[in-house]
Amino acid sequence: MKKFMNTVDTVLTESLDGFAAAHADILVLGDDHKFIRRKELKPGKVALISGGGSGHEPLHGGFVGHGMLDAACPGQVFTSPTPDQMLAAVQAVDTGAGCLFIVKNYEGDVMNFDMAAEMADGVLQVVTNDDVAVENSSYTTGRRGVAGTLVVEKIVGAAAEQGMALPALKALGDRVNAATRSMGVALTSGTVPAAGKPTFEIGDGEMEFGVGIHGEPGRRRDALKSADAIAEEVCAAIAGDFGDRAKGPALLFVNGFGGTPSMELYLMYNSARRIFERHGVTVIRSLVGSYVTSLDMAGCSITLTVLDDDMTALWDAPVHTATLRWGM
Amino acid sequence: MKKFMNTVDTVLTESLDGFAAAHADILVLGDDHKFIRRKELKPGKVALISGGGSGHEPLHGGFVGHGMLDAACPGQVFTSPTPDQMLAAVQAVDTGAGCLFIVKNYEGDVMNFDMAAEMADGVLQVVTNDDVAVENSSYTTGRRGVAGTLVVEKIVGAAAEQGMALPALKALGDRVNAATRSMGVALTSGTVPAAGKPTFEIGDGEMEFGVGIHGEPGRRRDALKSADAIAEEVCAAIAGDFGDRAKGPALLFVNGFGGTPSMELYLMYNSARRIFERHGVTVIRSLVGSYVTSLDMAGCSITLTVLDDDMTALWDAPVHTATLRWGM
Repeated sequence: MKKFMNTVDTVLTESLDGFAAAHADILVLGDDHKFIRRKELKPGKVALISGGGSGHEPLHGGFVGHGMLDAACPGQVFTSPTPDQMLAAVQAVDTGAGCLFIVKNYEGDVMNFDMAAEMADGVLQVVTNDDVAVENSSYTTGRRGVAGTLVVEKIVGAAAEQGMALPALKALGDRVNAATRSMGVALTSGTVPAAGKPTFEIGDGEMEFGVGIHGEPGRRRDALKSADAIAEEVCAAIAGDFGDRAKGPALLFVNGFGGTPSMELYLMYNSARRIFERHGVTVIRSLVGSYVTSLDMAGCSITLTVLDDDMTALWDAPVHTATLRWGM
Repeated sequence: MKKFMNTVDTVLTESLDGFAAAHADILVLGDDHKFIRRKELKPGKVALISGGGSGHEPLHGGFVGHGMLDAACPGQVFTSPTPDQMLAAVQAVDTGAGCLFIVKNYEGDVMNFDMAAEMADGVLQVVTNDDVAVENSSYTTGRRGVAGTLVVEKIVGAAAEQGMALPALKALGDRVNAATRSMGVALTSGTVPAAGKPTFEIGDGEMEFGVGIHGEPGRRRDALKSADAIAEEVCAAIAGDFGDRAKGPALLFVNGFGGTPSMELYLMYNSARRIFERHGVTVIRSLVGSYVTSLDMAGCSITLTVLDDDMTALWDAPVHTATLRWGM
């Protein structure tokens, strides 16, 4: 294992300390590293809280700030945060208008966010499940929540900033999730610090279609294909799952898993865009970069969100987080 | 070699096509992929042009736009762009106030930008050489220009946007370069698509201190050290080179080389910040991410720029590029 680290036990806390120090203008680290919260709270605004296992950075901490999340709870690497983390975050950021949890669909996350929601008052939840690769998986009943979670957080975050009430935010989050589909592929495995070796074995000439963001298996192992062939299969899976809805204006999001450089992500974007446009999609918004990662895994995912005018305006609305920033 | 690609010959052009399509709101691709230029030119403004071998993305194309570069010329991977690329860029973006070339100190780049500067009228140049690792290197006489180039491009770009004239911009660029020092380390080698194999061999337990952004050798090969030990050595080299100047307000920039995830970069930032502050530096601005890369190399560099009030205000000034964006 080759990583910049001091000890396995302190990788996460040292990284969080650095993150909070680098972005002290917009966020604050909670006691015992339980959560990262927005520095300036906005009274009367519904608080958005997300979180999950670490190792997917910048998700979720990188999306804390104006126009997106009010708090993010980082679990240990690939391990759900505990309910006391979410409760502490609720206490820190709820200004009286209630909280919305945005939760990726993994059994541990769903259970722990559920427990916190029961213990707190005035919490609703949106569970994301945008991954079309497989129906059930290693840690999931039903579809996995992956990179599309970012799109839900951005759009719902903008609506919360504008004053939308809790039930409407919950409905909007469910609507964005339903308008979003993703699928990923891996060329290599990431390495969890505590494990010290790659999560899965994969041959020099092999790739994994439909991989999850923890390296969990997808649809199949296959020989490494050309970028165009990979994009054809992934886009076909997404478009097929949408059916007739994969038409008209959309956000195309090509996401790197941590070990894949920008040059290759834009090449994949180029291919995916041509394929979706042939299907009748008009790409009106784009995002390309490593936003929902799997440590140092080489690979990428493709996400398509079918946009309506409201969702487009909310995507464009000002945001100021460590990672996404525009309009301010 | 495991990359998202179709053919070795089209990696660069397909990636540039994707990049231009994803950011069509702010930039335009020149004929024959010779350059990327800012979409909306500003008459009367000095044009800033940079470029260099590809494989360092988002440098330089990711920094084209309001408040930073007017054009970037992408060479083949790790190969200087040719003078006709820079000439075409000058013709496309010079609105009559002259051009400033920002050139990383590599022999091929310096020669080709020089040729273009002689053929065009009204061009001055800033050559960046922020790398303290070695005095001469594989492709360089004198120090190499590395991640600090981004800082020069941002600060000079802001001044150009505000109407500063060409000679003053050249002086500012030289001043920012002289206030900036960097050094990098590699844990793995990147792979050039046309080569098909890693640029250099490195053992499982080894690292390279002072590596260049093309994988060229640095100071020495050594056993992999802890993050703190690596940061101590890199920061000591930077602070030592600055001498008494490494005091007071500064920008700390921890840069990933492409294959290192965000979690490790923030951990390195945490360590470097503590070390520099012990030396008397006050970190008032921070940048952490993979901005000046070496394809898929795992590793990072640390850059310190000693700031004065003017430079700080120009760093904070609005910017709208594919990669850096704030204030608009």
